[in-house]
Amino acid sequence: MLVLSNMSSPLILITNDDGIHSPGLRYLIKIANKIGKVVVVAPDGPRSAQSHAITINSPITCEKIKIDDGKQLEFICSGTPVDCVKLALSEILDRKPDICISGINHGSNASSNVIYSGTVSAAIEAHLHSITSVGFSILDYAEDTKISHAEEFISEIINKLLNSKKSLCLNVNIPKFIENSPIQGMKAAKQAKGRWVEDFDERISPMGKRYFWLTGSFVKEDDSSDADQIILDDNFISIVPVKYDVTDYTKIDEVKDLLNE
Amino acid sequence: MLVLSNMSSPLILITNDDGIHSPGLRYLIKIANKIGKVVVVAPDGPRSAQSHAITINSPITCEKIKIDDGKQLEFICSGTPVDCVKLALSEILDRKPDICISGINHGSNASSNVIYSGTVSAAIEAHLHSITSVGFSILDYAEDTKISHAEEFISEIINKLLNSKKSLCLNVNIPKFIENSPIQGMKAAKQAKGRWVEDFDERISPMGKRYFWLTGSFVKEDDSSDADQIILDDNFISIVPVKYDVTDYTKIDEVKDLLNE
Repeated sequence: MLVLSNMSSPLILITNDDGIHSPGLRYLIKIANKIGKVVVVAPDGPRSAQSHAITINSPITCEKIKIDDGKQLEFICSGTPVDCVKLALSEILDRKPDICISGINHGSNASSNVIYSGTVSAAIEAHLHSITSVGFSILDYAEDTKISHAEEFISEIINKLLNSKKSLCLNVNIPKFIENSPIQGMKAAKQAKGRWVEDFDERISPMGKRYFWLTGSFVKEDDSSDADQIILDDNFISIVPVKYDVTDYTKIDEVKDLLNE
Repeated sequence: MLVLSNMSSPLILITNDDGIHSPGLRYLIKIANKIGKVVVVAPDGPRSAQSHAITINSPITCEKIKIDDGKQLEFICSGTPVDCVKLALSEILDRKPDICISGINHGSNASSNVIYSGTVSAAIEAHLHSITSVGFSILDYAEDTKISHAEEFISEIINKLLNSKKSLCLNVNIPKFIENSPIQGMKAAKQAKGRWVEDFDERISPMGKRYFWLTGSFVKEDDSSDADQIILDDNFISIVPVKYDVTDYTKIDEVKDLLNE
């Protein structure tokens, strides 16, 4: 366990779901190193679309690693993003971090993408442990995506959260870089309605066995001005407060009717 | 693709996260066979705590299989519970099922367990596709758990949903069998506040490498009379309507304050 209790600067836990070598994570570390003491606990490879999965039927490994010359401390973990957060809080840090930041994910986690997202699930897990947290995603799957257009906004969000007394868990999505089209600002948002419609690509293996690759297209089902996807379309950063309570409170009376309660 | 459009009886899609051979799933199939035409698409082995994970970086297999002499049609899939639902809707069924039922999970999915649950995530995925759905879980991890004390209730929930015009996604938790202590009934509920506090079991491999097994204890943080865990403690079945929108609407104004919007 690291002894970090006596530090004066904020303690920042970083993880992601694209893996510890991902450019988005490396960029986030650089930003966070200017703000506080950074400890990275991240997966050893891609864990995209792992949602809130945890490893319960096998053990996981976690080892100290040095990847670049930054001042952060880093640990590489064989588990999921949520495993990384659990392990960091239970076995690595000797006190609660002041903030947990996850990402920067390569690809959108707006609309219903959020429920598949390992990036945002890691932030939600930290928030379950009463830690202010934020998942950052950029609307570009490219490994070499340009992030510098968003750097000031990312720093601003982290600093605002560190200086705030509010307990928040945020899903932040950032528009892709477009030449001569700077980001217009940041807006609070709700999760847009929308879903993927699957179209599996069916193939036959050399051994004659049928297999499927998941493909699909996203169907927008929301044009509200405060929906994250709409805000992103207007070249703003969308910020959705999220929670781990999935109760649909608007339907409790319908359940009571169903049961004749 | 199966041609099922001309059936008069309800079409029931079944999946789970404990795998196609799990006793809980086999029991659910028996119950559902008395109600309608059953198609099972379930994982080839345990996928507990896989949450809403999907397989995007590798292909998956799915094959017809005959496991017992029931009248259901069955498919065994190498993916996650959510993959099973996506594959069923896209590649196996030629029309939307009238209901999707998931489980019966061996172990609780009450309180914040729901966010790790493959069982409930499969139901949520079906509901994203506008299909009424329900995840069943029993508060007993044992493979040979007794389920017969809950059979009438499970049938009643499925029948009520099939006869209802309501579009619901339900997280149903069932008390463990206790001799001479019948279930007291069913109640609509909300997700109880609560969380796991981890205590990783650290070991050294024969090769000298450190590894960790996830263990922990659950901390109850809710004593509301309508919280699912409290209802279960009173030997009632808890029924929580759930949704895929994880926006915390109560915090949107706090985000606006943070951004000086």
